[in-house]
Amino acid sequence: MADEERVGVGVVGLGYWGPNLLRVLSEMTGVHVRTICDLDPERLARFARRHPSVRATVRLEDVLEDPQIDAVVIATPVFSHYAIAARCLDAGKHTFVEKPLAASGEHARDLVSRAAEQDVRLMCGHVFLYSPPVRAVADMLRDGHLGEVYFISSSRVNLGLHQRDVSVVWDLGPHDFSILLSWLGESPTSVRAIGRDSIVSGLPDVAFIDLAFASGVIAHVELSWLSPSKLRRTVIVGSERMIVYEDGGIEPLRIFDHGVVYRDPETFGEFHLSYRTGDIVSPKLDTAEPIALELEDFFGLIRRGRSRADHLELACDVVGLVEAAETSLSRDGERVPFEGTYGQVAGQTD
Amino acid sequence: MADEERVGVGVVGLGYWGPNLLRVLSEMTGVHVRTICDLDPERLARFARRHPSVRATVRLEDVLEDPQIDAVVIATPVFSHYAIAARCLDAGKHTFVEKPLAASGEHARDLVSRAAEQDVRLMCGHVFLYSPPVRAVADMLRDGHLGEVYFISSSRVNLGLHQRDVSVVWDLGPHDFSILLSWLGESPTSVRAIGRDSIVSGLPDVAFIDLAFASGVIAHVELSWLSPSKLRRTVIVGSERMIVYEDGGIEPLRIFDHGVVYRDPETFGEFHLSYRTGDIVSPKLDTAEPIALELEDFFGLIRRGRSRADHLELACDVVGLVEAAETSLSRDGERVPFEGTYGQVAGQTD
Amino acid sequence: MADEERVGVGVVGLGYWGPNLLRVLSEMTGVHVRTICDLDPERLARFARRHPSVRATVRLEDVLEDPQIDAVVIATPVFSHYAIAARCLDAGKHTFVEKPLAASGEHARDLVSRAAEQDVRLMCGHVFLYSPPVRAVADMLRDGHLGEVYFISSSRVNLGLHQRDVSVVWDLGPHDFSILLSWLGESPTSVRAIGRDSIVSGLPDVAFIDLAFASGVIAHVELSWLSPSKLRRTVIVGSERMIVYEDGGIEPLRIFDHGVVYRDPETFGEFHLSYRTGDIVSPKLDTAEPIALELEDFFGLIRRGRSRADHLELACDVVGLVEAAETSLSRDGERVPFEGTYGQVAGQTD
Amino acid sequence: MADEERVGVGVVGLGYWGPNLLRVLSEMTGVHVRTICDLDPERLARFARRHPSVRATVRLEDVLEDPQIDAVVIATPVFSHYAIAARCLDAGKHTFVEKPLAASGEHARDLVSRAAEQDVRLMCGHVFLYSPPVRAVADMLRDGHLGEVYFISSSRVNLGLHQRDVSVVWDLGPHDFSILLSWLGESPTSVRAIGRDSIVSGLPDVAFIDLAFASGVIAHVELSWLSPSKLRRTVIVGSERMIVYEDGGIEPLRIFDHGVVYRDPETFGEFHLSYRTGDIVSPKLDTAEPIALELEDFFGLIRRGRSRADHLELACDVVGLVEAAETSLSRDGERVPFEGTYGQVAGQTD
Repeated sequence: MADEERVGVGVVGLGYWGPNLLRVLSEMTGVHVRTICDLDPERLARFARRHPSVRATVRLEDVLEDPQIDAVVIATPVFSHYAIAARCLDAGKHTFVEKPLAASGEHARDLVSRAAEQDVRLMCGHVFLYSPPVRAVADMLRDGHLGEVYFISSSRVNLGLHQRDVSVVWDLGPHDFSILLSWLGESPTSVRAIGRDSIVSGLPDVAFIDLAFASGVIAHVELSWLSPSKLRRTVIVGSERMIVYEDGGIEPLRIFDHGVVYRDPETFGEFHLSYRTGDIVSPKLDTAEPIALELEDFFGLIRRGRSRADHLELACDVVGLVEAAETSLSRDGERVPFEGTYGQVAGQTD
Repeated sequence: MADEERVGVGVVGLGYWGPNLLRVLSEMTGVHVRTICDLDPERLARFARRHPSVRATVRLEDVLEDPQIDAVVIATPVFSHYAIAARCLDAGKHTFVEKPLAASGEHARDLVSRAAEQDVRLMCGHVFLYSPPVRAVADMLRDGHLGEVYFISSSRVNLGLHQRDVSVVWDLGPHDFSILLSWLGESPTSVRAIGRDSIVSGLPDVAFIDLAFASGVIAHVELSWLSPSKLRRTVIVGSERMIVYEDGGIEPLRIFDHGVVYRDPETFGEFHLSYRTGDIVSPKLDTAEPIALELEDFFGLIRRGRSRADHLELACDVVGLVEAAETSLSRDGERVPFEGTYGQVAGQTD
Repeated sequence: MADEERVGVGVVGLGYWGPNLLRVLSEMTGVHVRTICDLDPERLARFARRHPSVRATVRLEDVLEDPQIDAVVIATPVFSHYAIAARCLDAGKHTFVEKPLAASGEHARDLVSRAAEQDVRLMCGHVFLYSPPVRAVADMLRDGHLGEVYFISSSRVNLGLHQRDVSVVWDLGPHDFSILLSWLGESPTSVRAIGRDSIVSGLPDVAFIDLAFASGVIAHVELSWLSPSKLRRTVIVGSERMIVYEDGGIEPLRIFDHGVVYRDPETFGEFHLSYRTGDIVSPKLDTAEPIALELEDFFGLIRRGRSRADHLELACDVVGLVEAAETSLSRDGERVPFEGTYGQVAGQTD
Repeated sequence: MADEERVGVGVVGLGYWGPNLLRVLSEMTGVHVRTICDLDPERLARFARRHPSVRATVRLEDVLEDPQIDAVVIATPVFSHYAIAARCLDAGKHTFVEKPLAASGEHARDLVSRAAEQDVRLMCGHVFLYSPPVRAVADMLRDGHLGEVYFISSSRVNLGLHQRDVSVVWDLGPHDFSILLSWLGESPTSVRAIGRDSIVSGLPDVAFIDLAFASGVIAHVELSWLSPSKLRRTVIVGSERMIVYEDGGIEPLRIFDHGVVYRDPETFGEFHLSYRTGDIVSPKLDTAEPIALELEDFFGLIRRGRSRADHLELACDVVGLVEAAETSLSRDGERVPFEGTYGQVAGQTD
């Protein structure tokens, strides 16, 4: 590995999210940002001034052809993910792609194949999977603290920002889809979505999406760029506990020790229900920065020379779910079956 | 009219809601509660003690055969609404039925016919239509203060109370359906619902319902008896303003002077969007008790000898919508077309 | 005891709070409300109709002279507490007086003496001492869960209701003073208060009160009838935990496992501080009605023939603290020393 | 003026707040940051890397002796303000000092004198005076929208950060004092404070402060480094409206159109009160950054060659109020008279 065991890195795309990745990469030990690349010379110059020792270029080739660049971190618009990532992989670079992995399931799977062929690491930036509250819920679910999960209901709404070329489902859906898959350890079997293109014709800015899982769990996701106030709230209802997760809130997790006690009807009797309410706990959460954790994971994979099949399956299924939701949207809410690969092979998830 | 111009009233059903109606009726001038009726002798005796001058009976006939009873107020379980109300109407009594009007659209319309035949007044207790925040929103919508309505998203969730014989859609749906119809002045053209019978097999306790309207408005309604905390929140998003309505909150209405400004693309240009955020206002609302307003309306109709066709159309459509949602639920979310009558005839709504 | 072991009770005063006491007394087993008494004949008639088997009278003598009345519950205006309670005690009746016990410390202590002379029970209706969150905090403090208490800051504010003849300190102060004394197990050693008579000249409607305790705890109490919104919030800061108590809130207690870790300076070093933040818990609380608990306590004392010296000391000290705060108010915030009796004799508090 | 009409600036002190000033200064047109100065070489080096064209030095002389530096911005620890600012002023530099202006009223006034002697501009960084909600309240008060102000109650509490050498009054008090003075247009006539040194002996970390104004307004300020959660909330109660200002909240200002209507007693009658509640409005506020506005003001004064006597009087009185509060704290809450100069001369406030 180049540069005395430091991983040489190129960063491609310095728009909305790229600067965050660049900032964290710059502060990581064991990582050396060698090159930044963006098509906009003015933007490039701005970051070049802040990082005088880093090479700045508008040419992707300068990244691909540099033998001291081991890994590329891509944060370009969604529809360029595939083309750029494919070139990086083919050039033998480990590749980190901001979510979603690609703009179609087919392209996403093709990237996974190329990474396997080249024996390099591929990872998708589903940063919420590294967020402390999301991880805490995943741990509780894995340990059975919630009992049987009945349903999950999520709202991710805000006033803005309308994207120019993709619907609210492409913009916000990957967040919820990645979280749901990682929590439930499976992909849904069907998707349904309705919505409306309120402001720009042809560009849905509000969507209501239902996901059905083989386990019986149903998940509902409301996405919108048209909301009076920002809300990022997910409710998980289990037989033993219920959780409210509010991303960005002062107390992002609130765990309700509530439940329903059901007793089967006796011989001639009726069933009996009682409601149990207990303590409500806002657990102290880890304060680690998710973006740093996810990049450390990426460099860990590189160092250990191992891929994470489950992560790539999740990333591909997220793209497939966005596609399926868009299909359902275009068919006015028709149920669209989904065949994912995430969670299908026992023991694969770490 | 009996009793020197006071309307003689019988109250049938003293379970959950009947006592509230009885309390308000007892305090109304111009109204004389003559008889209370319930099948449970113990419950009957309890209310008889509080109202010593009122006749208490387990026999509906005692109500029907009393010539001094002009009007009957019915608050029995949903599945008995039709049978009891039909007998009251046939006996020539003005009839007030707690919502929903009946357990099927056919029965609901049959009650309307009977009321017309007997030339007596029929009314359904959609009490939310008399709630000050619901009325304030209706006024704003009618006056165009919200601009074009894009969508409405509502959550009506709580921990409990599971009903023994009807789903959460029959229990909570009529609230939202009646509110939506009165606000939008039209019935939806199709309904879709998914849900789950989490606790009692065959009894859905959570449902996500989509309603599509001819005007393009989409409405989404989440209903649940399985929620960590009570929430009764409706968001109405219009082109000029947005409203958050939280029933029972300290500030039940919050009006956001927010919007999106869209400018069409010029010759070779792209469209341009900007977000406008203005003041947020919690208006001072009327403090009248909805249940008193609705009963005054009922007695007003009796006194003036007039029916309200629009009200009965709304009440019938609400029943039809619950039926349609249940059908969709049983078909796993299939779109069920709906042909309502509410709002179809111009000028009928008062 | 009269009436086959049931305690015969007279209720004197049916204004703001008396009806609540009457309602609970009517539903208690082992208690027989024989007589209600109020100077306002119209008000008296209203409650007589609801309680047809109870004697209604405007004459206190009818209560005092009835040998079947064992106990009197008094909920009249503050300035009549002493005169009425003294007559009840002298007539040999067990006596419950709504808080504050009297309008002066001297009168309060005189009532305690009369009760002792007659060997009857005397109790003051400090209902907050029976509220589940107040009791839960008291338990935590007694068990040392908060560590050393540093300070307590309380706000009890609302828009209204201005009393006609007493300041906001007489009206709201007894709530906080009784809670503070019961929590800390001691009376303060001095009081300071400033305030303003914003609306009615001579009638303070806002006050800021400081209490200093021998243990070093300082308590601050803000009382006001002039607040944009209702707030009843008390913060208790201890070395191990901190608590926010919001009376009437959905989650009335929130326990913060937070603290400051202080390390003494070493030889030449500086002191070192670190802040510890842990879980936040809203404990499930008992749902018992405080007013029923307090009356059960009163009748328990009667049955067991025992007095509670600590309770009466607290009640007397609360009156004394209101007097001291009023004195300080009139001297523009001068520190007024206070010599209480509550908590001075070890082992007396139960 | 040096550098073709750009104001040459030196920034002294890069600890907690200095970096914010440096960031904004770097982005201002018409301003040229020439030199940064800090005693900590490591910290200095860090900022030097980010600002490669700026001279970095540990010697204040390098700032004072540079003829191209017109103005110095000081953000050092409180107890060094005076010594550094005095040298800057004596060197003929326009001087901006982070709040508080100095560690004693005497020193503060001495700095004002030196600025006058040298005819250079002096300003103190009371940044809250430039915060949009504070300005909006000031405008409403000036225009009489609140009617007569009865009282103001403020809480500024947090968990941490204990300062090493100054009490919570020196740390947080200047915020509230500067806001109160600017709102009311006058300085208080007396101050009273009690508090406790809960964690570090001799270093008060909680204080309750009362300020009395000649107009009759009373203000109460709670300051603490020991609070379970951050709260920066000020309530202003006027005869016509009431305001809740929560710094940093999503809706920092909420204006309540509430009030009390008092009618004088008639000949033999009693006074009559009624409570009026109206709309609650969260006004849309300017989003300008306060720190940029305050620095623009400073450079505006420099360009126009004018001083702002009222601003300096306010800054001196804030220091004096902190001193007075500390005196009262040390005398266990004794009232300390205060003779301020702010607002004493009519027409001086701009």
